[in-house]
Amino acid sequence: MTFDTRSRGVYAIATTPFFDDGSIDFGSIDRLTDFYVESGCTGITILGIMGEAPKLEPDESRAIVRRVVSRAAVPVIVGVSAPGFAAMRSLARESMEIGAAGVMIAPPPALRTDDQIVNYFAGAVEAVGEDVPWVLQDYPLTLTVVMTPGVIARIMSDHPSCQMLKHEDWPGLEKVSKLRAMQKAGTLRDFSILCGNGGLFLDFEPERGADGAMTGYGFPDMLCELVDLFAAGRRDEAHDLFDAHLPLIRYEQQLGIGLAIRKHVLKRRGVLSSDAQRKPAQLLSATAKAEVDYLLARIARYDRRAAV
Amino acid sequence: MTFDTRSRGVYAIATTPFFDDGSIDFGSIDRLTDFYVESGCTGITILGIMGEAPKLEPDESRAIVRRVVSRAAVPVIVGVSAPGFAAMRSLARESMEIGAAGVMIAPPPALRTDDQIVNYFAGAVEAVGEDVPWVLQDYPLTLTVVMTPGVIARIMSDHPSCQMLKHEDWPGLEKVSKLRAMQKAGTLRDFSILCGNGGLFLDFEPERGADGAMTGYGFPDMLCELVDLFAAGRRDEAHDLFDAHLPLIRYEQQLGIGLAIRKHVLKRRGVLSSDAQRKPAQLLSATAKAEVDYLLARIARYDRRAAV
Amino acid sequence: MTFDTRSRGVYAIATTPFFDDGSIDFGSIDRLTDFYVESGCTGITILGIMGEAPKLEPDESRAIVRRVVSRAAVPVIVGVSAPGFAAMRSLARESMEIGAAGVMIAPPPALRTDDQIVNYFAGAVEAVGEDVPWVLQDYPLTLTVVMTPGVIARIMSDHPSCQMLKHEDWPGLEKVSKLRAMQKAGTLRDFSILCGNGGLFLDFEPERGADGAMTGYGFPDMLCELVDLFAAGRRDEAHDLFDAHLPLIRYEQQLGIGLAIRKHVLKRRGVLSSDAQRKPAQLLSATAKAEVDYLLARIARYDRRAAV
Amino acid sequence: MTFDTRSRGVYAIATTPFFDDGSIDFGSIDRLTDFYVESGCTGITILGIMGEAPKLEPDESRAIVRRVVSRAAVPVIVGVSAPGFAAMRSLARESMEIGAAGVMIAPPPALRTDDQIVNYFAGAVEAVGEDVPWVLQDYPLTLTVVMTPGVIARIMSDHPSCQMLKHEDWPGLEKVSKLRAMQKAGTLRDFSILCGNGGLFLDFEPERGADGAMTGYGFPDMLCELVDLFAAGRRDEAHDLFDAHLPLIRYEQQLGIGLAIRKHVLKRRGVLSSDAQRKPAQLLSATAKAEVDYLLARIARYDRRAAV
Repeated sequence: MTFDTRSRGVYAIATTPFFDDGSIDFGSIDRLTDFYVESGCTGITILGIMGEAPKLEPDESRAIVRRVVSRAAVPVIVGVSAPGFAAMRSLARESMEIGAAGVMIAPPPALRTDDQIVNYFAGAVEAVGEDVPWVLQDYPLTLTVVMTPGVIARIMSDHPSCQMLKHEDWPGLEKVSKLRAMQKAGTLRDFSILCGNGGLFLDFEPERGADGAMTGYGFPDMLCELVDLFAAGRRDEAHDLFDAHLPLIRYEQQLGIGLAIRKHVLKRRGVLSSDAQRKPAQLLSATAKAEVDYLLARIARYDRRAAV
Repeated sequence: MTFDTRSRGVYAIATTPFFDDGSIDFGSIDRLTDFYVESGCTGITILGIMGEAPKLEPDESRAIVRRVVSRAAVPVIVGVSAPGFAAMRSLARESMEIGAAGVMIAPPPALRTDDQIVNYFAGAVEAVGEDVPWVLQDYPLTLTVVMTPGVIARIMSDHPSCQMLKHEDWPGLEKVSKLRAMQKAGTLRDFSILCGNGGLFLDFEPERGADGAMTGYGFPDMLCELVDLFAAGRRDEAHDLFDAHLPLIRYEQQLGIGLAIRKHVLKRRGVLSSDAQRKPAQLLSATAKAEVDYLLARIARYDRRAAV
Repeated sequence: MTFDTRSRGVYAIATTPFFDDGSIDFGSIDRLTDFYVESGCTGITILGIMGEAPKLEPDESRAIVRRVVSRAAVPVIVGVSAPGFAAMRSLARESMEIGAAGVMIAPPPALRTDDQIVNYFAGAVEAVGEDVPWVLQDYPLTLTVVMTPGVIARIMSDHPSCQMLKHEDWPGLEKVSKLRAMQKAGTLRDFSILCGNGGLFLDFEPERGADGAMTGYGFPDMLCELVDLFAAGRRDEAHDLFDAHLPLIRYEQQLGIGLAIRKHVLKRRGVLSSDAQRKPAQLLSATAKAEVDYLLARIARYDRRAAV
Repeated sequence: MTFDTRSRGVYAIATTPFFDDGSIDFGSIDRLTDFYVESGCTGITILGIMGEAPKLEPDESRAIVRRVVSRAAVPVIVGVSAPGFAAMRSLARESMEIGAAGVMIAPPPALRTDDQIVNYFAGAVEAVGEDVPWVLQDYPLTLTVVMTPGVIARIMSDHPSCQMLKHEDWPGLEKVSKLRAMQKAGTLRDFSILCGNGGLFLDFEPERGADGAMTGYGFPDMLCELVDLFAAGRRDEAHDLFDAHLPLIRYEQQLGIGLAIRKHVLKRRGVLSSDAQRKPAQLLSATAKAEVDYLLARIARYDRRAAV
């Protein structure tokens, strides 16, 4: 159960639990960590885009890393994307000293050309150190940076310390196929591919060559089961399970309020004590909460985990 | 069955059929027109973003308007968005002379401030003429222009000729609720709201206040049935139907290749003789086609219309 | 005096003259055409971004091409950038039949990756025909598309019909040097480089390797003189002339109102009968006009051409 | 000499001096601070976009604030723009405790609608505290956020703690006139307007109503003299001085390498011991340095301060 180019399964994108007054809820962090491990997750990613990282003081970020690393029996990845390399480096180095398995780096939105993207990651790797294993995050919908398979290949070739691609391009199925074809042809080295985008295409990504998922959908136990079903070649069963959850997966995949939905579900499942976010936050209306609860009830007809 | 502020139901976003050699397939246009009407659509929108309009010569655009208008028993809306008001005006005026019921106008991507957006539509309405009924298209995901409910209210207040909002903001459920609340409070005049985004949230939009859908999903008959079920208050049945189709609705909702999927489905259903697009086009891989066909087969277990 | 990879000097970016009622002022087109030729311009570019092309009906565009081509004793380039290849092709083919020397093509703002840019121009060249000589426009400030020297090299290598780069990247001096170094090293074929950006860096671009300018500053006669001074190695004199005009060059280089300033100056110089623009237009305030006139008066102390 | 709504003159945008090995050069910070004060600056702004702030560790930022505040005899403004309110608040509170006069806040690039902008600053002011005086930075060219006069008026009305607008919209002369007209009409409260954009329009901004400049051009002594000349109504002399410097002001106004030019000039003037930047940095080529030196030599014919 290590973080390397052969990592498989589900890495949970962890939310950061807060009390209603905005202070960090370490008790919920513990429960959440246990919940992910007991759900079968093979890794946990903290302080990512959905982890409200920019709302945390540096000391708070370190405290959260320490708490999760000390408790989790699986590799912990720390999101270290930052507007400057100084903050990226210090969080990365400190996280590794604390015991994190690696870090995740996303490109800043201003990058445009292929060379700009490749050069940025060269700078980032120099900043965090070539000895730090890391995940390349490819998320154009939010970051507006589009990386072709060729650009990803250049980054992977330049940096042996990169272990994994967090793939959440959209549309992105052909990109997974293309990268795997390049590897099969021997023109690209091996690395793990875990898919994000809230799991919205996880009914086809494993067959395209993905090793699993890295996302924060409120049912990581279902995601693990789904990846196992595909690994076992039980395609129709996998789709049955996926389709039962798709209405909620789709509903959660709304930029801005997605995090509120995710925290609401985790609270309903008894993992978080509060669904509070730090400001600025987009909150769920009463109508939206009722819609989520209706979807949960519908899922529960097929999957009892949703009977909350 | 008129196009006005009380329009309801499903307006089909029509694809433009081509032969494999790139010439316009008027036979398929006729079949597609009939198919939409027989499916229960209350309107047809042509030459929109999914209608490959920029790939058409002006003469071709007029010929298509003429063909559809002369055949359809329902109102026909013509997309007239253009980088300049000259082209917008001439297509709008000619379409109305031919017999179109109205036009649809989207904001150009460069607009930023609220005032820029409001002023743009003032110029557009002056260009096409205040006598031309029109649809305001609100589609930030592709157009990058974000219109608040307040901006929409200003546009609606300034221009009585606007009959309808094509709502495809994302996330967008709260926006529908907000606009309807403003109307209920008497601070906003009435207009029709039909939702786009490929129908991805059509399981909740009617309850939020939408009058139906304006989208091009390959099963307009299903969309019509869905809207009718909601109108009849048969919520659970509506969700059952929607959920059966959601895997394909979601799959089709991939920017760039969505049109290829849509044409493939319409060809499989026997409506189009070819799924050809004019260049530039993104094509479906064999794997993608097989995935679509697998999804069709799964839908067909619940809805025989998908047994193609 | 042909349009090819060895073109030098100044290609004027022509405005499109209108009467106050918005109709095309063909008399002013004739005067403007004569003015450019008499100023020493080696070419004229019409229907570009500053030519209000999107505000013209297709028939109007053809009429303007015909008028300028029939009168000018120098090569005429026609801007054919369009949201779709159909309109681009028809305007390009018709312009060439009328007698244009070539066309100019800019990338659409949505392009992001290097491959997307390269593929776009492949499609554009296929659309207009490989026999049509063309200018590649590189203008990131307005178009948001950033082309590295490597991308430009790929496009030039793929398309022998491209004769010229209209260079208006910003900052861009190093890019000119880099492209010329690649050509000197034999890794890039020859092509002409004319610089835009209103001439804002024309005091250094010739020494970096540019062949001249393609811009619409209201003193094309000065631009021609400037390029000649550099060609004659009279550097200090060139800078003296440039610096006298720089306050106005800089003032004109304001996105949005730059065209209004340019038309105002051309009217003051007696070339245009009106400074009218078609809508949507940004107009000069009385204060702004007074500022321009003050700058003209200051230039006139050194250059009598500005004594208008 | 306080920082409030009546502040006038020149606030220098300070670079952050580094040694060649990347460590902070506190000796140069002292010299730079003295240089600004002796040049006549009425304020100093540190850790702004041109201050390489994202490349600093939090401890380094505090050390720089402490150094400048303890030495400067003028108000010191600290740039606190950050992707999250947590980092913004802690830097703002600590800077004020150290003795800063206020902070400067820019909007993050993702903001689009008027309401999003207004709400963002509401959150920022709540984060830093309503007691902290601040500068609103309006810089669309880099930040892509466009604020209309109406939006600025809403922010100013909501937040009495905002003392100043750093105006660097482009084009922006009409915006200054518009804001001053609103104040004159009594529909907008008073605030100071200092202009940025490297001083590129400082030959007209004072007459439009600006109170001076906030920029980092390497000749702050010239900027102070210029503002004084305008205050004394000596328009032609002001333009003579400005025009002598405009070639360099224009040259420095190149996004990306502008900072390298600025540091090069400050080193040539003997203020900085090194022109080093922390990575990522864009460096000047030998040709570019020679061009800057040539421009300095030309300026020196009129202004001996440039004889370096």
